[in-house]
Amino acid sequence: MSAPVEGYETDPWQLRWRGLAVDQLHRTESTFALGNGHIGIRGTLEEGEPRGLPGTYLNGFYEEHELPYAEAGYGYPEAGQTVVNVTDGKVIRLLVEDEPFDMRYGVATAHDRTLDFRTGTLTRNTDWMSPTGRHVRVRTQRLVSFTQRAVVAIRYEVEPLDGDTQLVLQSDLLANEPIESDTSDPRVAAALQSPLAAEFSFAQDYRAVLVHQTKRSGLRIAAAMDHLIESPDGLRTTISAEDDLARLTIAVEVPRGKRLRLTKFLGYGWSAQRSVPALRAQVDAALAGAVQTGWDGLLAEQKAFLEDFWTTADIQIDGDPELQQATRFALFHILQAGARGESRAIPGKGLTGPGYDGHAFWDTESFVLPVLTYTMPEAARDALRWRHSTLDKAKDRAVQLGLRGAAFPWRSINGAECSAYWPAGTAAFHVSADISDAIARYLAATGDEEFERSCGTEILAETARLWMSLGHFDSHDRFRIDGVTGPDEYSAVADNNVYTNLMAARNLREAAASCGRLPEVAARLGVTEHETRTWRNAAERISVPYDAERGVHPQSEGFTEHLDWDFEHTRSRDYPLLLHFPYFDLYRRQVVKQADLVLALHLCGDAFTPEEKARNFAYYEARTVRDSSLSAATQAVVAAEVGHLDLAYDYVGEAALTDLHDVHNNVRNGLHMASLAGAWLGFVAGFGGMRDHNGQITFAPRLPSALDRLEFRMCLRGSRFAVEIHADRATYRLVSGKPVEISHYGSPCTVDEGPVTLPVPEPTAGPAPAQPAGRAPSRRHPERLRPAQPLQQP
Amino acid sequence: MSAPVEGYETDPWQLRWRGLAVDQLHRTESTFALGNGHIGIRGTLEEGEPRGLPGTYLNGFYEEHELPYAEAGYGYPEAGQTVVNVTDGKVIRLLVEDEPFDMRYGVATAHDRTLDFRTGTLTRNTDWMSPTGRHVRVRTQRLVSFTQRAVVAIRYEVEPLDGDTQLVLQSDLLANEPIESDTSDPRVAAALQSPLAAEFSFAQDYRAVLVHQTKRSGLRIAAAMDHLIESPDGLRTTISAEDDLARLTIAVEVPRGKRLRLTKFLGYGWSAQRSVPALRAQVDAALAGAVQTGWDGLLAEQKAFLEDFWTTADIQIDGDPELQQATRFALFHILQAGARGESRAIPGKGLTGPGYDGHAFWDTESFVLPVLTYTMPEAARDALRWRHSTLDKAKDRAVQLGLRGAAFPWRSINGAECSAYWPAGTAAFHVSADISDAIARYLAATGDEEFERSCGTEILAETARLWMSLGHFDSHDRFRIDGVTGPDEYSAVADNNVYTNLMAARNLREAAASCGRLPEVAARLGVTEHETRTWRNAAERISVPYDAERGVHPQSEGFTEHLDWDFEHTRSRDYPLLLHFPYFDLYRRQVVKQADLVLALHLCGDAFTPEEKARNFAYYEARTVRDSSLSAATQAVVAAEVGHLDLAYDYVGEAALTDLHDVHNNVRNGLHMASLAGAWLGFVAGFGGMRDHNGQITFAPRLPSALDRLEFRMCLRGSRFAVEIHADRATYRLVSGKPVEISHYGSPCTVDEGPVTLPVPEPTAGPAPAQPAGRAPSRRHPERLRPAQPLQQP
Repeated sequence: MSAPVEGYETDPWQLRWRGLAVDQLHRTESTFALGNGHIGIRGTLEEGEPRGLPGTYLNGFYEEHELPYAEAGYGYPEAGQTVVNVTDGKVIRLLVEDEPFDMRYGVATAHDRTLDFRTGTLTRNTDWMSPTGRHVRVRTQRLVSFTQRAVVAIRYEVEPLDGDTQLVLQSDLLANEPIESDTSDPRVAAALQSPLAAEFSFAQDYRAVLVHQTKRSGLRIAAAMDHLIESPDGLRTTISAEDDLARLTIAVEVPRGKRLRLTKFLGYGWSAQRSVPALRAQVDAALAGAVQTGWDGLLAEQKAFLEDFWTTADIQIDGDPELQQATRFALFHILQAGARGESRAIPGKGLTGPGYDGHAFWDTESFVLPVLTYTMPEAARDALRWRHSTLDKAKDRAVQLGLRGAAFPWRSINGAECSAYWPAGTAAFHVSADISDAIARYLAATGDEEFERSCGTEILAETARLWMSLGHFDSHDRFRIDGVTGPDEYSAVADNNVYTNLMAARNLREAAASCGRLPEVAARLGVTEHETRTWRNAAERISVPYDAERGVHPQSEGFTEHLDWDFEHTRSRDYPLLLHFPYFDLYRRQVVKQADLVLALHLCGDAFTPEEKARNFAYYEARTVRDSSLSAATQAVVAAEVGHLDLAYDYVGEAALTDLHDVHNNVRNGLHMASLAGAWLGFVAGFGGMRDHNGQITFAPRLPSALDRLEFRMCLRGSRFAVEIHADRATYRLVSGKPVEISHYGSPCTVDEGPVTLPVPEPTAGPAPAQPAGRAPSRRHPERLRPAQPLQQP
Repeated sequence: MSAPVEGYETDPWQLRWRGLAVDQLHRTESTFALGNGHIGIRGTLEEGEPRGLPGTYLNGFYEEHELPYAEAGYGYPEAGQTVVNVTDGKVIRLLVEDEPFDMRYGVATAHDRTLDFRTGTLTRNTDWMSPTGRHVRVRTQRLVSFTQRAVVAIRYEVEPLDGDTQLVLQSDLLANEPIESDTSDPRVAAALQSPLAAEFSFAQDYRAVLVHQTKRSGLRIAAAMDHLIESPDGLRTTISAEDDLARLTIAVEVPRGKRLRLTKFLGYGWSAQRSVPALRAQVDAALAGAVQTGWDGLLAEQKAFLEDFWTTADIQIDGDPELQQATRFALFHILQAGARGESRAIPGKGLTGPGYDGHAFWDTESFVLPVLTYTMPEAARDALRWRHSTLDKAKDRAVQLGLRGAAFPWRSINGAECSAYWPAGTAAFHVSADISDAIARYLAATGDEEFERSCGTEILAETARLWMSLGHFDSHDRFRIDGVTGPDEYSAVADNNVYTNLMAARNLREAAASCGRLPEVAARLGVTEHETRTWRNAAERISVPYDAERGVHPQSEGFTEHLDWDFEHTRSRDYPLLLHFPYFDLYRRQVVKQADLVLALHLCGDAFTPEEKARNFAYYEARTVRDSSLSAATQAVVAAEVGHLDLAYDYVGEAALTDLHDVHNNVRNGLHMASLAGAWLGFVAGFGGMRDHNGQITFAPRLPSALDRLEFRMCLRGSRFAVEIHADRATYRLVSGKPVEISHYGSPCTVDEGPVTLPVPEPTAGPAPAQPAGRAPSRRHPERLRPAQPLQQP
């Protein structure tokens, strides 16, 4: 097998891998995953093998399993949830004169795969010589439709290259595919070994359907397929269905110069309630729609949908083609994760792999939704509607914990808490403030009163009640929140975490404001004026510890008194630290896994002076090891704000390339949605200086030395506008809709039809702070930066 | 079945239960347990049923099982250990004219069982009428020998009361008895279902032996039995042995007025290394010794052993017969737990039941060993030798945790950490200081230089190294210890726990002193003068947080800033709180499970002024719920010191009666050794005011109003002396040995042959502080106390 060039090729609008590297398939299965927020299919080859980890996922579809505890405790969740690899419909196997088309055998004289960000398809071109010398060309293209959310379509073409050839295609629906599991718990492994119980199967002509149910969670899934065949004469087909397999078999002799072309349409549906006939009807209907639209129609819809998205969301980066590609790749995958979730969660890995058990975390609200809010607000709304649909579970959880209001889960698929380690789960109550923050941002950006009335006010009020029951006024009338865990997972269960307290204060203020806007909703929720006054008072009196001796804010009370980590004697193979050191050692030291106080500097920047930001950033920069993918983007944003633009640029690069470079060595399990979102945040909030404190959109653009020009787009209350940044100036331009009020470096400005160009001041920061030994981000374009500004230690 | 009187009868030297209450058997199986520190047998009836929970234990003999984690972490222990119910040799079944003697059927016209603290035996008298009217009298007596540690002996007599009767006795060795397990983990249950694999069995004449091995931990156990039979003529016997059962069967026709008497000798042994023949030889030899000594000889040895013990350890309490009985019961069981442990642990439940999985905790060093140090110092030494034998494991654990020196386990049987919840396990590093404290106390009380040379210095030095690696000097040159858990399990992972810091400081000082005394040992351990200087400096500069606003010491940094618990709305059924509230809620509030700062007031009393003690005691008294059996004794000791003698008396009562009154509703699983030790502490350290700071023995006697007189005994450096306390005076008297230097209310005093009587000052405290609603200790003799001093809220 030949693979003349290996690895991703740089292209502004595509991700292409040329050559087949079997040992890299697990990476490309994630990066080449297709999805629409409802269905996700990994980029496995059509023939099923060789493979890394196959996967077909439906958002919200999971199996339950017991959570074991050697020492149990009150309030520990008893049931875990894990995303299930559902019925696989992308399998199309080829036999060439009775030899299976398997790229581990024979020779691939050409092979490439391309993910196209404008067509929304994954295309494959393979020229293959079988071990006995038969030469065929295989071209496939597939899509998960953005416009018909239950539909996947695959086109599969085979062309003999050296003579008449008998070809056989087997197009499958395959349930309970054997997969490897990472779990060490035999009960979890057993639950996932063969999770689907067959309920119904049927096949006729070119169509087949399989219906299954999970054994414990009781969720039902239907998968159906239909086919169009374009073929020379002499075609023979058979179709069959058994419990876990439906198969259309096609056999034909194809003369040289002719082709066999199969178009496969797949329909997926699941429900916790609907019956077998109802679910079967649902997927049959989806198929009927897809067949009626046809392959070319689906392609055209897909393209139009994406054209609209890029008009709102594109980022142009002049001077760094790799980052240009990575950033569009990132935005494309965020779109795929969120576009058609429709009241389901956006998991930490989207629908690109089984990592994190398919759970959604605070990442969604704090990293992904800011992007969607300003690029595809209806997707942000849908994700927040999911949270609202789980409000009963969050309220039950609060009761179980002895609290009032709603306590949203640290990790979940269906809204019930699945975190089995409470110091880094239940105690991380900030997730509820993060959700409220996302709601407040969405409301300010869209003015969507319908959402506020039906969902927003209620979540804001119930989370405000949570904070009032979690915190208390101390003897000096400061509002304290004790014993909680902030974003940094290398500390836990501490008092007055600055990030948590400031976010809780915002939560309380936004809840009061929303209740003020919608008094009838407030009345329905039993919120009185006395209550909102208490909320405002607690927000006003929130405790924010400060270490006057060191001139910095401790991440939490007492943090800056802790022992420093011994970075000097920590070897590079000791990272990530949590795999090599016990929690107790991490918790008692000043070592930061991910931005925590620095995240407060970004999201609650209006609570700090510029000097505090600079000192805090430098202090925490020296103590942050970035063992989490949730850190680089935030460090980029704050580095840019305090003037370290080239350092910010390095961090943006790391965030954007997390998955393409497999920085955390786990892309096999899926893409890091928050890190991909971090690329957008790095450009827009970092180099664009965009902030949305109190719903006001402000900019402070500045460009790192490596870039010649940056342009990004945003939408706000139905208007779209572009911000174009050069080293010395920035231009604001309305793309569509009504004029938009923003500010540029503190000066109000209206973005209207005629572009407004304003000067960008010279950056004035001193040398950038140092990171712990070996933990500096990779330098981008070091040949260009090094002479100008030697930032890092050797 | 008749049971005219039920429950324990009060007697100064015995514990008797008259009548059979089947539903109370699980309680008396624990209170009537016999043991010698090596073997423990629960007080199950000889016929095996009815029963609560049968149990025969060998100290240190355990099975291993996997510890499951839903979310694993670095350094979490992978294997658990659980005490195993070994081969049961106490089973002797009786058939009366082919009817099984089973007290659930027929009528017991008389039935009592008596544990005798001076003979060290459990005696039973039962007159029983079978369902068909056969009347027999059964008398049994059994002992676990203090003098022959591998030996158990049982005498079983049957007498027909109404005519010639055919009697059959079956005397068993029974392995893998089916028992119920409390565990919810199927893997643990499976490991304990049938833990012993048969290796060897043999029977001949009246003797039999069974050898087994645990399946995973690979420990080998041998149990053997031999018998003497005294019988009328016509005796027929058979003996047999199979894998899990050896049985001697005896059948004989017994005329009215005659008796059948069986004496059963049991020998037990276990080893991780010895072969089957070696272990069989070991138990055969034990049996040979027992038979040679004979029943009467074993009884006589037992009595002499106990006479010596009571001469050293007895406490006489005039004015409260129930407490007199309970206190001797307590001392008897502590003796049983520790007498012949010989380099094995003293588990939290002794060998009286399977509670806490048979693990040893810090309770041993902090509660049980102070008693043994002053009453049976060689038992204290043996328990500390066990710790020394596990030092390699403690050093390995320290390495695993990234620390230096030795980190002793929170809970263990073999010395390896078995705690699966690190915030209340690994983080409770004070266990290492508690061990060092017990060593320092033992050394000061005995002057045992051989022990210091072979074990003491090394443990002190390695634990001192632990503290130096756990703590650090802050910017003000105070030595901080961050992120640890103190004794109170309703707080965790906090900075500068006062108890931990003060105990660590003592550990450091004692280590330096011991290295100074034994420079050649210090040199062998690589301890330099520089190192001991560092230890002394850290001890000197130890951080002890103080809350000047409230005038009290916070248990840990920030504790007094936390929210108070809402005691008003906590119902009595909500206790113990940890079963009804999540850890996070407990940790962030000022609610105390067990004495923590108050334990520091006792053990580190020289670090506080009398006024601080009074204020601290009152502050924590209002916040301590005593959900642990490790609290009442400490509260008694400090209540007495600050002058609340009647409150102290209530607490002493609770500690002493914890198991007889089944205060924690779990005596079924075994006795609370630390609570039993608390009875001694309450009288000696509480009403005797005994302290041993810096190895100096001091007294400040004072009597609660309910008592007329209290006398206790202690041994010190080979001398024994008595302290007799009346309301207005105390008399010190040497019992044997050389004169002893003590102090009485701060005045030095020599205890010599002639008694010294000194005045006791009038107590001067104000009203006693209140406890949380419903959490006051039960009042003792309320009819006598209530008019004088209404202490508690209603």
